[in-house]
Amino acid sequence: MLDAIFNPAAIAVYGASRNPEKVGHTVLKHLLAGGYEGRLVPINPAAEDVLDLPCYPNAAAACVPIDLAILVVPPKLVEASMREALDCGAKGIVVITAGFKETGKEGAEREIVLTALCREYGARMLGPNCLGLINTANKMNASFAPQMPERGAISVVSQSGALCTAILDLAVERGLGLAKLVSIGNKADLDESDMLEALARDPETKVIACYLESIQSGNRFIEVAERVGRDKPVVVLKAGTTQAGARAASSHTGSLAGADIAYGAAFKRAGVLRADDFESLFDISKALAMQPLPKGDRIAVITNAGGPGIIAADAIERQGMTVAKLTPAIEGKLRAALPSSASAANPIDVLGDAPPERYVTSLEAVMGDAGVDAVVVILTPQAMSLPRETARAIIETQRDGKPVLAAFMGGRDVAPARAEFLFNDLPDYTAPERAVVALRKMCDYAAWKQRPPRVVTRLPINRHRIERIIERHRRTGRVQIGEADAKKILATYHFNVPEGQLARTADDAVAVAEHVGYPVAMKIASPDIIHKSDLGGVKIGLRSASEVRDAFDLMYLRLNRAMPEAELLGAYVEAMCPPGREVILGMTRDPSFGPMLMFGLGGIFVEVMKDVSFNLAPLTHEEAAQMLEGTRSYALLRGARGQKAVDLQALAGALQTLSQLATDFPEIAEMDINPFMVGPPGARSMVADARMTLTEDERSDA
Amino acid sequence: MLDAIFNPAAIAVYGASRNPEKVGHTVLKHLLAGGYEGRLVPINPAAEDVLDLPCYPNAAAACVPIDLAILVVPPKLVEASMREALDCGAKGIVVITAGFKETGKEGAEREIVLTALCREYGARMLGPNCLGLINTANKMNASFAPQMPERGAISVVSQSGALCTAILDLAVERGLGLAKLVSIGNKADLDESDMLEALARDPETKVIACYLESIQSGNRFIEVAERVGRDKPVVVLKAGTTQAGARAASSHTGSLAGADIAYGAAFKRAGVLRADDFESLFDISKALAMQPLPKGDRIAVITNAGGPGIIAADAIERQGMTVAKLTPAIEGKLRAALPSSASAANPIDVLGDAPPERYVTSLEAVMGDAGVDAVVVILTPQAMSLPRETARAIIETQRDGKPVLAAFMGGRDVAPARAEFLFNDLPDYTAPERAVVALRKMCDYAAWKQRPPRVVTRLPINRHRIERIIERHRRTGRVQIGEADAKKILATYHFNVPEGQLARTADDAVAVAEHVGYPVAMKIASPDIIHKSDLGGVKIGLRSASEVRDAFDLMYLRLNRAMPEAELLGAYVEAMCPPGREVILGMTRDPSFGPMLMFGLGGIFVEVMKDVSFNLAPLTHEEAAQMLEGTRSYALLRGARGQKAVDLQALAGALQTLSQLATDFPEIAEMDINPFMVGPPGARSMVADARMTLTEDERSDA
Repeated sequence: MLDAIFNPAAIAVYGASRNPEKVGHTVLKHLLAGGYEGRLVPINPAAEDVLDLPCYPNAAAACVPIDLAILVVPPKLVEASMREALDCGAKGIVVITAGFKETGKEGAEREIVLTALCREYGARMLGPNCLGLINTANKMNASFAPQMPERGAISVVSQSGALCTAILDLAVERGLGLAKLVSIGNKADLDESDMLEALARDPETKVIACYLESIQSGNRFIEVAERVGRDKPVVVLKAGTTQAGARAASSHTGSLAGADIAYGAAFKRAGVLRADDFESLFDISKALAMQPLPKGDRIAVITNAGGPGIIAADAIERQGMTVAKLTPAIEGKLRAALPSSASAANPIDVLGDAPPERYVTSLEAVMGDAGVDAVVVILTPQAMSLPRETARAIIETQRDGKPVLAAFMGGRDVAPARAEFLFNDLPDYTAPERAVVALRKMCDYAAWKQRPPRVVTRLPINRHRIERIIERHRRTGRVQIGEADAKKILATYHFNVPEGQLARTADDAVAVAEHVGYPVAMKIASPDIIHKSDLGGVKIGLRSASEVRDAFDLMYLRLNRAMPEAELLGAYVEAMCPPGREVILGMTRDPSFGPMLMFGLGGIFVEVMKDVSFNLAPLTHEEAAQMLEGTRSYALLRGARGQKAVDLQALAGALQTLSQLATDFPEIAEMDINPFMVGPPGARSMVADARMTLTEDERSDA
Repeated sequence: MLDAIFNPAAIAVYGASRNPEKVGHTVLKHLLAGGYEGRLVPINPAAEDVLDLPCYPNAAAACVPIDLAILVVPPKLVEASMREALDCGAKGIVVITAGFKETGKEGAEREIVLTALCREYGARMLGPNCLGLINTANKMNASFAPQMPERGAISVVSQSGALCTAILDLAVERGLGLAKLVSIGNKADLDESDMLEALARDPETKVIACYLESIQSGNRFIEVAERVGRDKPVVVLKAGTTQAGARAASSHTGSLAGADIAYGAAFKRAGVLRADDFESLFDISKALAMQPLPKGDRIAVITNAGGPGIIAADAIERQGMTVAKLTPAIEGKLRAALPSSASAANPIDVLGDAPPERYVTSLEAVMGDAGVDAVVVILTPQAMSLPRETARAIIETQRDGKPVLAAFMGGRDVAPARAEFLFNDLPDYTAPERAVVALRKMCDYAAWKQRPPRVVTRLPINRHRIERIIERHRRTGRVQIGEADAKKILATYHFNVPEGQLARTADDAVAVAEHVGYPVAMKIASPDIIHKSDLGGVKIGLRSASEVRDAFDLMYLRLNRAMPEAELLGAYVEAMCPPGREVILGMTRDPSFGPMLMFGLGGIFVEVMKDVSFNLAPLTHEEAAQMLEGTRSYALLRGARGQKAVDLQALAGALQTLSQLATDFPEIAEMDINPFMVGPPGARSMVADARMTLTEDERSDA
């Protein structure tokens, strides 16, 4: 679909220049230098030829159909140049020129015009404000990055052009091969999801490595990445992780969820592997491109020195993997084959004077051990070491079945070994910890591929009741949905709520109490009062008509005094909840990924210990259960320390239902059920208090 | 003091060999190749000359006084060779030969003989089982590592010889200078602390980088490292961090404290900077060797690309530092000087086409900004970039006052810049995250140097009472000290304990209760029952003589039935504690660093949330207060969520007192005060329950 961009037969370079200081000159030079074999058409009304190619005032004058147009003209000429290229048949546009969305509102408007123009012609655009792209398969360097990497299995997608140049420079220095390198710039048309789809179909690409600062359409990204991930691993370095969006956080959920939590949840669901820093982006991609996936996380270490073996074992444990325990037969065989002072137990220490054969013996042994899923081979260059020969021997010994990663430590002495590894697709690292991090991600990816299919169950519900409540709030311009209406909405979704009703007078309140039965709870109803209990707006355990009457009058008296401007709608009177453990269920909306659910134990667990877990809607039952398990206080729910176990099924179900409600009604911006009272298995768990916030009404804009 | 080892005028090489495959040949060859200018005396009875040097059957035959003897003879000849060398005046011995402690008991015994021999002669020994050492100042490569690094300011001490070779190889490849490199091997005599002391006095050494697997004498290490750290930073990569010692954990404290926690606490106290992995050991050491310390943690970032600027800002926040806010005047000046589309706010984006001058302008501005403590300068190699010229310009612009770290990303294109930086002592990294980690450690070190003096206050106590209790337990061979005696010990240290007494009969119990006043608590007293309450061995709130009598009889009945073999000494009857918050104070002994205190809130906070903090004795008041602050639940102690604040002073004081008790009585292996009831400020905080465990009695060995 993006053939015009990746494999054009003819490229027009708008703004091709004779001046070697201009980017328009550089881009054309790189296309020539890279060895692109298609037709190149420089466009520049002021030149007759550029770099020995005939130059044309426009594509039409060149009388040749154009597949791809690269625009390096000044910002104000971009639109006209693009139109001309499209008229000449271009289906792909790369706008290298900057000066659009990144410069402010006016630039953003000009950018929208470009996108619309492309859509009108059925063409696709990369950029603007990008570095261009490189395809090593057809030797096309359509970028202003000077270097052409070797062909390889890793494709890179970067939101930062500068990072592309750094990556290229590094890849060229280390001889690491790339398939495609794409700078997506402002992503006015083609974005990360489009690139994933295109690279999924690229036979050269085995691994997709991305640098991203933002993801525009979160749900599409999840959907595409999940699909692409089935065949090819996607590794992402996400920048901008710590600056949580400065959103008004009116709910618990909103204040506890940093922006990065949604990205983390999205990546996990879609099987996207997250790199923690720039270097590990390549450490991980390299391992995935070169080696098979491990079947489990039991790692064997072969080393010619104790210290680095310990370092590797530490790293394996720290990454939550297992230092493999060798089967006794294999360990015995190793003990017989290695010198007596060697360690035949994992980490296997083949000693400082180890010749290549001793590595081969050990590697063969662990490759044949059913208790080993992957191997890290370490060498430190000692007096007797033969790094290059050892590398060759390891390369020849590795089998297809299990991943082997090398950590040859040092510099000059191990350089020839590094070259051997690179040439033979065995990933090699300067320190064992880096190999171990790569293995961790390989394990994660393997586990993700093995995951059971996601099944999101849905309850049948009656939308109308909820639509009416929202409609009523919209009419009065209120975005806060108070307890009474929030409970009605939740009841529609089959949540248990205590029987109750809004009472406008003390007499009403007594009538409600008589109807639902004593004891009752009473809570002030006011759109202006959020923290009811702080102002004496909550009374519980009222046992008689007179207590109800007293409570109602006192509440009005006090609240009128404390907040004379607050509108009091009455008091909500309801049956008391059966006793149980207090938990909080919440929902907030991430700007990219939509509804995100929160779970935590009530009281100090959320407020002091910040012990909460998150995941994105829609939730499967397994994901809801994982949210419960994801809190440190989970043991209490299961029944630790003499506490009774609570109904975990009911709790997971409640999260799933809330997830459905959030998905069904995008008008609801935030929800908190706080507390949700959960009892022992089989008991009725119940919503004790709840509130919701609607999105700002956007219909006035429509 | 270690001059004979670091600066010998004459070196004898025992086991110097003509056979190039032998280590004895290699070591002599390296001494010659390195350029050592002192006298070299090869010792080998079977050769007349080695490598063109006259060879002698022993040092005496050479008729020259020997300062340093390097032993590369077979294990069984080491002792005789060493004695001969010592007789010829050697004050330094390097035993490269392996086959000692690392091979088992017999080897360990032979090693003890060597150490004793050295002591007898007043000489010092490095090794055995080490790689040797290198001193670049006198060009002495007394090791079997083939390469001689450049002179530099970093000295390396490594417990792993193999890691030395990897470090050397890396240093040589990168041109990184070293002062000394010492492989300490089995540390039979000279250990890490000796090396710190020696390197502290070495004028060439500015930073000491260590790789350690164990520390033998923890207290000496803390004392030495703290002293050395005042002048020179010590950076340590500690391996073996995750394999917590498999100790019998009879107390809370013991089971919660992994072995690594003691190392962490020791390093923090001594100002030792901890490297998390192999590469950061050099990242950090390099920065400290080359740049001044920052005055604070406000970091400015200058970059020619947005993406890496965001990556750097993320890393700064993740490391708990501050992305500096520039003062308006400086920001205004920058805005005027930079192109309009540049970002004058931190991170400062000088744009992809930035010439060196734009970096200079920005660097001068932030160096002059009082709100900036350190600078990270990033360059990605773009079309217009001049990496080498930019590096030179940065080097010339940096002032002495603030540290400047570079992160020039990429490979081939930035290599010339890297060479400039290295030559001019400006640390440079391949990724911004690595520069930021180094800065974090520089800040930590600067803060440690500024710390107030540690003042450990001591209470006067009466040792005799405690000695008598311990003596009584020793006589009966019991290591568990029960509640009654534990409380007596604590009362001696001025802890408040409820008034109470051991009662042997129901009548006794009533008498005690009448004496202390109702209500009372009763707890079974038995050396065989650790979890009293699980077996019905605890009753609280007993209000009358008949309740006391009933409780006593029931306890005996039930415990005789549940544990017929348990010895029952009676029941401990005491006044009830005043209400308060339950906390746990504990102590366990680390094999290297001795007594370690633990603090946590009682109940679920310790058992479910594992919310505890640790520090080593002796504690200052500040350190005790930091232990309280180090728990996540600290907010509750301060009075969050409507809870009353507790007496934090009393709590910190209790930890200090417990620290003194642990230091005063090394016979006490473990203690738990669980719970300690702490009330509001001014109230009497009290030990509700306590127990202690003595060390195994070692007097029988004496």
